[in-house]
Amino acid sequence: MSGTKLSGKEVAQHSSRESCWIIVHGNVYDVTEFLDDHPGGSKIILKYAGKDATAEYDPIHPPDAITTNLPKEKHLGPVEPDTVEKVEVKITDEDKARLERMENKPSLTEVLNLHDFEYVAKQVMPEKAWAYYSSAADDEITIRENHAAFHRIWFRPRILRDVTEVDYSTKILGHASSMPIYITATALGKLGHPDGELNLTRAAAKHGVIQMIPTLASCSFDEIVDNAQPGQVQFLQLYVNKDRAVTKRIVQHAESRGIKGLFITVDAPQLGRREKDMRQKFEAEDPSEVTKAGSDGVDRTQGAARAISSFIDPGLSWKDVAWFKSITKMPLILKGVQCWEDVLMAYDHGLAGCVLSNHGGRQLDFARSGIEILAESVTHLKEKRGLTFPNEKFQLFVDGGVRRATDVLKAVALGATAVGIGRPFLYAFSSYGVDGVNHALTILKAEFEMNLRLLGAPTIKDVVPEMVDASNLSSHIVAVPQDTLYENNYEVMKPATMRIKTKL
Amino acid sequence: MSGTKLSGKEVAQHSSRESCWIIVHGNVYDVTEFLDDHPGGSKIILKYAGKDATAEYDPIHPPDAITTNLPKEKHLGPVEPDTVEKVEVKITDEDKARLERMENKPSLTEVLNLHDFEYVAKQVMPEKAWAYYSSAADDEITIRENHAAFHRIWFRPRILRDVTEVDYSTKILGHASSMPIYITATALGKLGHPDGELNLTRAAAKHGVIQMIPTLASCSFDEIVDNAQPGQVQFLQLYVNKDRAVTKRIVQHAESRGIKGLFITVDAPQLGRREKDMRQKFEAEDPSEVTKAGSDGVDRTQGAARAISSFIDPGLSWKDVAWFKSITKMPLILKGVQCWEDVLMAYDHGLAGCVLSNHGGRQLDFARSGIEILAESVTHLKEKRGLTFPNEKFQLFVDGGVRRATDVLKAVALGATAVGIGRPFLYAFSSYGVDGVNHALTILKAEFEMNLRLLGAPTIKDVVPEMVDASNLSSHIVAVPQDTLYENNYEVMKPATMRIKTKL
Amino acid sequence: MSGTKLSGKEVAQHSSRESCWIIVHGNVYDVTEFLDDHPGGSKIILKYAGKDATAEYDPIHPPDAITTNLPKEKHLGPVEPDTVEKVEVKITDEDKARLERMENKPSLTEVLNLHDFEYVAKQVMPEKAWAYYSSAADDEITIRENHAAFHRIWFRPRILRDVTEVDYSTKILGHASSMPIYITATALGKLGHPDGELNLTRAAAKHGVIQMIPTLASCSFDEIVDNAQPGQVQFLQLYVNKDRAVTKRIVQHAESRGIKGLFITVDAPQLGRREKDMRQKFEAEDPSEVTKAGSDGVDRTQGAARAISSFIDPGLSWKDVAWFKSITKMPLILKGVQCWEDVLMAYDHGLAGCVLSNHGGRQLDFARSGIEILAESVTHLKEKRGLTFPNEKFQLFVDGGVRRATDVLKAVALGATAVGIGRPFLYAFSSYGVDGVNHALTILKAEFEMNLRLLGAPTIKDVVPEMVDASNLSSHIVAVPQDTLYENNYEVMKPATMRIKTKL
Amino acid sequence: MSGTKLSGKEVAQHSSRESCWIIVHGNVYDVTEFLDDHPGGSKIILKYAGKDATAEYDPIHPPDAITTNLPKEKHLGPVEPDTVEKVEVKITDEDKARLERMENKPSLTEVLNLHDFEYVAKQVMPEKAWAYYSSAADDEITIRENHAAFHRIWFRPRILRDVTEVDYSTKILGHASSMPIYITATALGKLGHPDGELNLTRAAAKHGVIQMIPTLASCSFDEIVDNAQPGQVQFLQLYVNKDRAVTKRIVQHAESRGIKGLFITVDAPQLGRREKDMRQKFEAEDPSEVTKAGSDGVDRTQGAARAISSFIDPGLSWKDVAWFKSITKMPLILKGVQCWEDVLMAYDHGLAGCVLSNHGGRQLDFARSGIEILAESVTHLKEKRGLTFPNEKFQLFVDGGVRRATDVLKAVALGATAVGIGRPFLYAFSSYGVDGVNHALTILKAEFEMNLRLLGAPTIKDVVPEMVDASNLSSHIVAVPQDTLYENNYEVMKPATMRIKTKL
Repeated sequence: MSGTKLSGKEVAQHSSRESCWIIVHGNVYDVTEFLDDHPGGSKIILKYAGKDATAEYDPIHPPDAITTNLPKEKHLGPVEPDTVEKVEVKITDEDKARLERMENKPSLTEVLNLHDFEYVAKQVMPEKAWAYYSSAADDEITIRENHAAFHRIWFRPRILRDVTEVDYSTKILGHASSMPIYITATALGKLGHPDGELNLTRAAAKHGVIQMIPTLASCSFDEIVDNAQPGQVQFLQLYVNKDRAVTKRIVQHAESRGIKGLFITVDAPQLGRREKDMRQKFEAEDPSEVTKAGSDGVDRTQGAARAISSFIDPGLSWKDVAWFKSITKMPLILKGVQCWEDVLMAYDHGLAGCVLSNHGGRQLDFARSGIEILAESVTHLKEKRGLTFPNEKFQLFVDGGVRRATDVLKAVALGATAVGIGRPFLYAFSSYGVDGVNHALTILKAEFEMNLRLLGAPTIKDVVPEMVDASNLSSHIVAVPQDTLYENNYEVMKPATMRIKTKL
Repeated sequence: MSGTKLSGKEVAQHSSRESCWIIVHGNVYDVTEFLDDHPGGSKIILKYAGKDATAEYDPIHPPDAITTNLPKEKHLGPVEPDTVEKVEVKITDEDKARLERMENKPSLTEVLNLHDFEYVAKQVMPEKAWAYYSSAADDEITIRENHAAFHRIWFRPRILRDVTEVDYSTKILGHASSMPIYITATALGKLGHPDGELNLTRAAAKHGVIQMIPTLASCSFDEIVDNAQPGQVQFLQLYVNKDRAVTKRIVQHAESRGIKGLFITVDAPQLGRREKDMRQKFEAEDPSEVTKAGSDGVDRTQGAARAISSFIDPGLSWKDVAWFKSITKMPLILKGVQCWEDVLMAYDHGLAGCVLSNHGGRQLDFARSGIEILAESVTHLKEKRGLTFPNEKFQLFVDGGVRRATDVLKAVALGATAVGIGRPFLYAFSSYGVDGVNHALTILKAEFEMNLRLLGAPTIKDVVPEMVDASNLSSHIVAVPQDTLYENNYEVMKPATMRIKTKL
Repeated sequence: MSGTKLSGKEVAQHSSRESCWIIVHGNVYDVTEFLDDHPGGSKIILKYAGKDATAEYDPIHPPDAITTNLPKEKHLGPVEPDTVEKVEVKITDEDKARLERMENKPSLTEVLNLHDFEYVAKQVMPEKAWAYYSSAADDEITIRENHAAFHRIWFRPRILRDVTEVDYSTKILGHASSMPIYITATALGKLGHPDGELNLTRAAAKHGVIQMIPTLASCSFDEIVDNAQPGQVQFLQLYVNKDRAVTKRIVQHAESRGIKGLFITVDAPQLGRREKDMRQKFEAEDPSEVTKAGSDGVDRTQGAARAISSFIDPGLSWKDVAWFKSITKMPLILKGVQCWEDVLMAYDHGLAGCVLSNHGGRQLDFARSGIEILAESVTHLKEKRGLTFPNEKFQLFVDGGVRRATDVLKAVALGATAVGIGRPFLYAFSSYGVDGVNHALTILKAEFEMNLRLLGAPTIKDVVPEMVDASNLSSHIVAVPQDTLYENNYEVMKPATMRIKTKL
Repeated sequence: MSGTKLSGKEVAQHSSRESCWIIVHGNVYDVTEFLDDHPGGSKIILKYAGKDATAEYDPIHPPDAITTNLPKEKHLGPVEPDTVEKVEVKITDEDKARLERMENKPSLTEVLNLHDFEYVAKQVMPEKAWAYYSSAADDEITIRENHAAFHRIWFRPRILRDVTEVDYSTKILGHASSMPIYITATALGKLGHPDGELNLTRAAAKHGVIQMIPTLASCSFDEIVDNAQPGQVQFLQLYVNKDRAVTKRIVQHAESRGIKGLFITVDAPQLGRREKDMRQKFEAEDPSEVTKAGSDGVDRTQGAARAISSFIDPGLSWKDVAWFKSITKMPLILKGVQCWEDVLMAYDHGLAGCVLSNHGGRQLDFARSGIEILAESVTHLKEKRGLTFPNEKFQLFVDGGVRRATDVLKAVALGATAVGIGRPFLYAFSSYGVDGVNHALTILKAEFEMNLRLLGAPTIKDVVPEMVDASNLSSHIVAVPQDTLYENNYEVMKPATMRIKTKL
């Protein structure tokens, strides 16, 4: 740890399982003994043994992950920059095609809705990032149900109300928000764009919405907070560590930095298997290697999700609520509540609210959508505790599947304070950086203005339960399988025939 | 404003943002200061700066729009016709293909139903017109639901009733109609055919049905009334202007011209975003231009709908009803009522009826279909005011999604006096002019005759609620997302195999 | 009308609208004055003016149609056969391809179910015949609903019952039937096969099932009865003529020939528009001719259905029931009853039963399926008249959409005495003649044996209501329209990838 | 039957219908008189007349089928091995392609779920085997409904429960099982892999799950039992023979070999027609032969199912229960119960449980899924006998359509003790042998661990009814048929357009 820096050449000699050094952000680390403990497996580290691993490391790890997890004596100090051999990045044909698509993406003016961002992102994002962001649990029924559930709620608009001025602003946990939405926490932002979560911070400031900072951000927590404007409100999403001391440090640090709400994730005692993400791994790697790896019977290939989550405590329970109250004054909200019984328990435990959510369909497949749980929770908490919603003291939020302001307004009508939106913003900045997020928020504002007018609701408070028909919300219908022999025999009707001109 | 006309050459010199003159219908206008106020954006005007803009102007604007909106001193007077350079219209390959399709369209004898008109129109109409007519709000769920809702109503026909003579005529607001339908108001008819709305006026006369004249017709109101036959009944659809004096003038003029009913649009305080229409704009223009335009962050590209609607008053409210009663004796009907509560209010305000409608799906997506609102309104008005339907004093109408006489008869059975049909007639005249509309009405008559016989209902009065089963009308069902891995593994059954002959 | 026969040459001179003779079955008829009264239009007759029209005439007309409809003085007597020029039949490429497909059709052993017959027939039948048989009303919703409705009924089989011997025979109107089905009436059998309805007569005899003879058979009634075996039971389907004398003659003749039941069609006061059938007409004819024909505004092109049905009386009513009872002792059954109210009326009028049917979906679109009406009728007749079903005194039948013995057994469980099957047998003989119908009946027997065993029902009487769950029978569900932008963005999951070998 | 062995040459002379000898496992049999009694038809035997039939015989017949069915005097003794001409197996192009696919199948590490095994098997299995395993009854509605029914059940997971340790083990009929599943009985394992059912025996041992041995195994019962590990629990599935002496011998032998439960199949008095299986036969054989065969009117082509099942007794009834109790002390379970009434009877007859099953959709089409019957049975047995489930004394099982641990957990929540899985394991060993089955079981364990955590249920006992919403389980919904003319006219929305680069 002397003043003289290590040379790249010296580092390069430690390139084996027996002695494995890597360079991250200009510092050298001896990870030899850590190889077998690496949640992402030893293989990916060995690929960079003796080399600069920063480019691979950055989007998947919080910046301080390596310094936190590795004992001090393994921090070997800085490397002489010029002496490090560049890791040659192979540009594949697929990469080239992708970059060409990036160049030819539609201009933002042509992006008319949040779907468009997804469409563009699917084409211009690195496959690995797309696989990580877009994937969900098992057969991905729940991720799609999240969106589909909104289609079972229909509007009952009112007419002849003066809607010259409409105001779609609201308050979330007492803080102003320009719309009844917030940017919910999503991990690994740098997979999509080098500025990662900062894109969200900046756009949130510009548009007056609240950002929820994720535990698994690829920018550091402080970096994100530092990039906020004065007075800008931010929340923190928390995965609770098996080591409560770590959690306590994170929470109290957040509070000291001005975080206004703590959203404790309760739907992820173990991070879900997302097969698209896992599948992508195989496609990206040498199949012969994969085959060999597989032959030892150890599963090292569960995609990005597992690589980053082994610290999460599956032992978290209601008993921990009191402890949280003892370490912070921030409002505590449970994120990932999935039935009214637990909403009731959260209320009875004196919490500030719940996010009715299934983690974007990424955890338990066939979990119901947040919007469906919202409806049952409002009913039961009214019946059993006399509460009405939206409720300032105990706030309900929903996330998952939202693409239009109409989706949000359905949730508001049913009693939600606000709705979290995640993936659409990821797709927006992955394709267009901060401008993309700004454009997405602009689109939402235009939609809110229009739809409040059309609903006959000048303000968010005027969006009441009678404005929606949600009577089919709990109908989970599966069509009887087709009688294909019959269907294929049936000849579909044809329209009048165009007379074909000979020279055509 | 002297007696000498301006020369085309002189006009041509004012072709910049600094000084912009255009020619419309042989008159010159200085629009320099109006450029930034143009609801359709300055760009489209600048394209015609110093030139004759009539061809572009005509189908989108009511004929007097320019004289009404521009101060007198900007009316520079007539131009010497021969001196104006012709605006060269580029005939694109797409145009040529379209004209060829127009030549080869099916003969009217081959057009068997209203769907066929849509099929032909989709192929022979200019893209811009198709985009404007066919587009709807957001994800276009409601426009399709309007049609789909009729599929949830099934018939309970009666047998062994003498149906030798059937009579499908009825009365609408006291006026005879050969069928329980009317031609509802749709804007910008000249986009589809040079005679615009006059096609409808003429066919309505021939077939004894009532036309509702739109505020946003591309023929002038007087032109449409002048083209009516003596005694021909017409209604007026009204967008209420922010300037009530304008509205008063329109209404009283209409009454003086013999209009028999005033249908006040209440579902459009702001005209909807229709993304297909917006999308078409981008496709039609130079993409590099669009990109630059987009970079200033101003959205100038909301398609035809926005270009024509900025005058509509979002402040219209129930308080205005009394005022309307004070300026006219015409029956007042609200067009665009979307829940029974507002139907009840309309009744309690002494109005003559309601059109249960969502503006053809063009305003609020996930608004319910008119037919569904009809059913709930009939139930509640019976319960709360003792009314039965059809009701002469307070008439209910439905529009949206109608393609067959069976659709109309379902509405009649549920209590509607008549049903409005819009797009199908637009498609009919866009492809075949007035002959198309006549043929469409002939088809409907044949269907009414047939279906009354098959229902066992010799007259419209015999079409009673017991003749339909509407018990699923309010079921908004969404199928659980598919388990694609399972579905793709399933091998569909095959029929017996044809023995393939070698030489085949 | 002398003993000397006319020569073909002489006939050939009468080939114009001014003087139009045609030859049918070796006799010459002067149809000049009849041209405009021909239900099928004058054009098709003029095509054969001065020529032998037998081949065109035969499959569409009952054999005696021309002699019945034309006054005696227009019967010009027999023609000298050798002098008649053969009508040259053009064999088109399409005809050739069809004949080739006919040669290569699967052997009967490979035909495993009734769907297979339809699959083969679709490929080997003349287009005109396929269009006539397969078409249905309007958007053909009801024809498919007829089949789909069975999919809403599920079995509740019983176990551990001795099913060593199973017996699927039953009685229909007191007459033995080897299965709870009968061959229902379908028109124009010769369109599909030169032996027409006789194929059905012969197979019915062999398999012990009952044939219902259609009024619009292309074989004459007597021919069909003559071809029956001694003791073979036949029913008659009746379209009631405007001229009741004709009907009386038909009915009493039928009774005298031993017909055991009269099924009076009550769902067809006017024969439905079937657009596929109409469409086929245009395709078959010279488009320029069609255009011209269309320009006179007269619709002469409604396909085969209209051509044969103008005699049917739309004035038939309940009052006629007494008259029918006065002219025959045969059991009277109404065919085409479509709601329980009319079933009740039929019972109260002392009829022998009802066929709950919508005419194979060919009349009123959105009429409900027979099986659905069966369920409601059984409920209401039990409640209001104390009847139980199956009931010997008042029998209920169903037809439409049946393809499997399971479909039949569902109807039996719900109370039907038997089920009518039509199109599948038409398809069977159109492809394979009488062998096809025999094979179809053999398949059904195998299915009945199997399914009775699997249901735990040794006999038809053991197939009871508790064996089915029909609780969803009345659910007419329409899915909410798809959010295509969302669906298209969603990337479906992929299975494990096959490693592709280079040389593949 | 002397000590000298027969020569291949001599056997080869008996190659006709008049004298037909075949070799199986090195022994010669005279099957001349047996030809017409062969359940699989004579043709397939004649193909091997005078030759070695072992390869064809093995996967379809239990090893002792020939010695059991043929009288002693037709056992002609062993053949001199070297003298037997090899039966030349033609390797078709399809076989080659299949073998190539087998070589290139994904490595097991890439197989992420049970669907993947089916995907691979579909490509690498012999067509005949695939057709036999994958086929089901009639239109294959029930086989798919079995899977689809699980999609109508949704989870209601609980949060904040300590799930650090989760335990998914349970007891089945008192015996430990590592998961709440068992390997259910499926026939003819050697069609997929030479080791047949032994693959299952070995993997079951390794993973601590119970195997149910099928009556129609292609390995002999004793072979399967011999291959079990000491203490390994096995059950027996029983088709009851018309000859009860045979059944008694089988049952008592099983008991003596340590079998722990007897699952008597009650849903197959006759084995179902499976048309895919039958269809495959035609494709595999010379079509001209098939045609000829068909012409004699005898159906010899019902696929593998019929070939093996003629011994099953359709006379089996409740009366036999007492007899079973008299011959064995093993717990008796009925397999294939399909309504709550029969579950109640089973309980009242003192049986140990029921498998709610429809034989994998292979028997009666439109039989309901086991999971649906489970729900109704639990309700009714609670109501009528006061039972709660899971119940140690009277256990309920479900099989059919299971692909995920979530499916199993839904059944457990509703009251099942365990769930049978069949086809997925067949597909696993057909592609990968015993390693495939091991991998499948490993996947299930990973899914159980994950899903118990996400449900908030540390053990199987914590998976309670309140954790699922099964309110739509009995909804058998069929969508109203599409209005194709309308649908085809509708133009789907498009996303923002990529700007296409010229050189692309």
